[in-house]
Amino acid sequence: MARKSSLFKQTLIATLFFILAIYAFFVTFFHTPFTASDPSSTDEELELSSRENLDFPGKEIDPSGFGGKVKVFMYDLPHKFTYGIIQQHGLARGGSAVADVTTLQYPGHQHMHEWFLFSDLARPESERVGSHITKVNDPEEADLFFVPVFSSLSLIVNAGRPPGSGSGYNDEGMQEALVEWLEGQEYWRRNNGWDHVIIAGDPNALYRVVDRVKNAVLLVSDFGRLRPDQGSLVKDVIIPYSHRISAYTGDFGVEERKTLLFFMGNRYRKEGGKIRDLLFQILETEEDVVIKHGTQSRENRRAASRGMHTSKFCLNPAGDTPSACRLFDAIVSLCVPVIVSDSIELPFEDAIDYRKFSVFVETAAALKPGYLVSLLRKVPTERIIEYQKAMKEVRRYYDYTDPNGAVNEIWRQVSQKLPLIKLMINRDRRLVKKDSSEPTCSCLCSNQTGIISSL
Amino acid sequence: MARKSSLFKQTLIATLFFILAIYAFFVTFFHTPFTASDPSSTDEELELSSRENLDFPGKEIDPSGFGGKVKVFMYDLPHKFTYGIIQQHGLARGGSAVADVTTLQYPGHQHMHEWFLFSDLARPESERVGSHITKVNDPEEADLFFVPVFSSLSLIVNAGRPPGSGSGYNDEGMQEALVEWLEGQEYWRRNNGWDHVIIAGDPNALYRVVDRVKNAVLLVSDFGRLRPDQGSLVKDVIIPYSHRISAYTGDFGVEERKTLLFFMGNRYRKEGGKIRDLLFQILETEEDVVIKHGTQSRENRRAASRGMHTSKFCLNPAGDTPSACRLFDAIVSLCVPVIVSDSIELPFEDAIDYRKFSVFVETAAALKPGYLVSLLRKVPTERIIEYQKAMKEVRRYYDYTDPNGAVNEIWRQVSQKLPLIKLMINRDRRLVKKDSSEPTCSCLCSNQTGIISSL
Repeated sequence: MARKSSLFKQTLIATLFFILAIYAFFVTFFHTPFTASDPSSTDEELELSSRENLDFPGKEIDPSGFGGKVKVFMYDLPHKFTYGIIQQHGLARGGSAVADVTTLQYPGHQHMHEWFLFSDLARPESERVGSHITKVNDPEEADLFFVPVFSSLSLIVNAGRPPGSGSGYNDEGMQEALVEWLEGQEYWRRNNGWDHVIIAGDPNALYRVVDRVKNAVLLVSDFGRLRPDQGSLVKDVIIPYSHRISAYTGDFGVEERKTLLFFMGNRYRKEGGKIRDLLFQILETEEDVVIKHGTQSRENRRAASRGMHTSKFCLNPAGDTPSACRLFDAIVSLCVPVIVSDSIELPFEDAIDYRKFSVFVETAAALKPGYLVSLLRKVPTERIIEYQKAMKEVRRYYDYTDPNGAVNEIWRQVSQKLPLIKLMINRDRRLVKKDSSEPTCSCLCSNQTGIISSL
Repeated sequence: MARKSSLFKQTLIATLFFILAIYAFFVTFFHTPFTASDPSSTDEELELSSRENLDFPGKEIDPSGFGGKVKVFMYDLPHKFTYGIIQQHGLARGGSAVADVTTLQYPGHQHMHEWFLFSDLARPESERVGSHITKVNDPEEADLFFVPVFSSLSLIVNAGRPPGSGSGYNDEGMQEALVEWLEGQEYWRRNNGWDHVIIAGDPNALYRVVDRVKNAVLLVSDFGRLRPDQGSLVKDVIIPYSHRISAYTGDFGVEERKTLLFFMGNRYRKEGGKIRDLLFQILETEEDVVIKHGTQSRENRRAASRGMHTSKFCLNPAGDTPSACRLFDAIVSLCVPVIVSDSIELPFEDAIDYRKFSVFVETAAALKPGYLVSLLRKVPTERIIEYQKAMKEVRRYYDYTDPNGAVNEIWRQVSQKLPLIKLMINRDRRLVKKDSSEPTCSCLCSNQTGIISSL
């Protein structure tokens, strides 16, 4: 009996242990993976954010600026605002019409960013791994609305064609049609365009209608053609030109860089760009300076590439507007940019300190004979190598083909605008009528005294 | 032997089960708490973020705006800028000096926010669970620097005392001393104050030195006393007054709210506040309106509380400046605010749509005899209940004692400024000297036409 009782006890205990063991097995082998592999769970978000930290250990700034990523809806624009413009560009150059315009390839030029941003959002969301925004297909879910018009390409459809020989395409007509189309959209009207993002990379893109789209976040190269109430650092995003010359793949150093200062481009430009001719006059007699007049062509691009790869410094004077694609060519060439453009705005300046790899010189100082070259000749090799290393570190920011490059960084900038956009939307709806005809503006002002040169 | 063998097997199995059971026990009862209680682990962050999602299912905006939380360093200010002011406030009211000023209690008033923000950052970081910023003790690690001066309390140390009877305390002297102290700080000088956060809740706080601290993110009630280059929605943060009357704890509805419109406060104010006397003249004859002159006192606060808890609408006219603490008293009282203050700015307006629970009326319209009351009498009960429900939802934003209340939301607003602050810091360093004496400003302008009334 004693033995039986003991056996019963043992069996009971064993059974209890068995149940506990089964429980332990499930807890151990199923609980954690179940949670982690559920894509809708917050574990997944945690995973993504850890991955981000691993990829870019130096960067603190969050892609989204929001708990979840900012949700962007891209309009399925009528083709006349996108692929149709590629068609027109081809027709104006003797090409023939194709039945399916979506098979056309976007032509290479310095404002290809509009193509890269469009392509990024046209991809299935599953391929957009690592993006700082989420594409949504339902406008109701969207925080922001992207208008992927090829506004810069439209501007040059008939560029360089003799008057009258064009295809009959009319950029201004396209602009007007675009705004009419937008104003017909429920989501545009809902918030007066505040939550829309429009690309106008070329400083002249959309010039005719900018007053009608100025509430939107504009993606621009600079503010050269925009009044302060049309474009600003607060509302808009400065995007880099698409660089056209090949990246320098050699080592840091100055061994292969015998030229002190290099420039190749149009000598004669309007407005702020008049400085170019003056700089030519001062610099063209200097022995270690190469300064050449040249317009855009494949051959000239090759020559510019060679020049930038074999020079220590690359001159970046203002063009018709403060910005120029040359800056980004210089950075990928590891040729230290010498920026002589007092009103330039620079992309991603919240994350990038341009003084780490560029020399800023005030225009008036740069025009003093001898000043610029003697300033640059004094820069020691070690300093130039530091600049080159800094350029290599930020190069991805200007590369539209890098999966973690310009496209991603532009979306990061765009998503950082969301709190102010939401504020403006809510505020506009309740603002009462005022007597003043002046717009109500909120500003961020810099009251610095300014430098003559950053060296 | 068979039995022995069987017994051996049973013992072996039981032992194995026992080991598994012990394991199960540990896995079940210790594993989870261990992870969750480790403050540095990402699991903790995950838990927090899930909790956030549960608490506020409608809110999408991330507290930080950055991958990691924004890191804030609070200056250990000399006591004359913090506790010393509490001492002075007490001395001016007949109190006696204490040896250890840190034992003093901050006196209750409508700008207590300076106390709540100070206390929040004075706590050990381990107690600051759920905050949208991380406090750091090493300034080298900081993104932003908080200057916890009791600037509003300083302003009222001698308020209401007959001239000459004061304690000899001088608010202007305190302001000057503060700026001198700040200008002696390495981290202030480093970025010209751009990355500093200064609290100046009372519209008159720090008025004498605002030009010297205007680069900082100012925490203010409105922009009534600031020029556009000193304060703006873009650079600064609008914070709510600390409400002084008790929250309404009853049900939604109008049963207990027989009064149509309630106001109690100072009838005579300067500038925009002149409207008050005009509104008194129009409204004091209306039967269902209670409009009373009264200054700040405990008794009057009790009467105001009663009035706000028993009225459908609460009038919020401009004071000397566009904002007034009354708005936040109305919200916690579930008394629908009627805002007659054309230049008012509202806290947290990126996250809160005030039209959901407030009525905005243009000043000129509100002054038309009969307009306001007939507008409000037409509002159906269901609409009032909707407003009340919306108020209850946002109430926590105005509660400085709620662990997820005003303090948290202010830090969230502050952290959203970081990208622009970093941009301005980098940009200022490389901006070249310009001929123009005008500051360089980036603005966000609203070009809306405005409403007469939001009803």
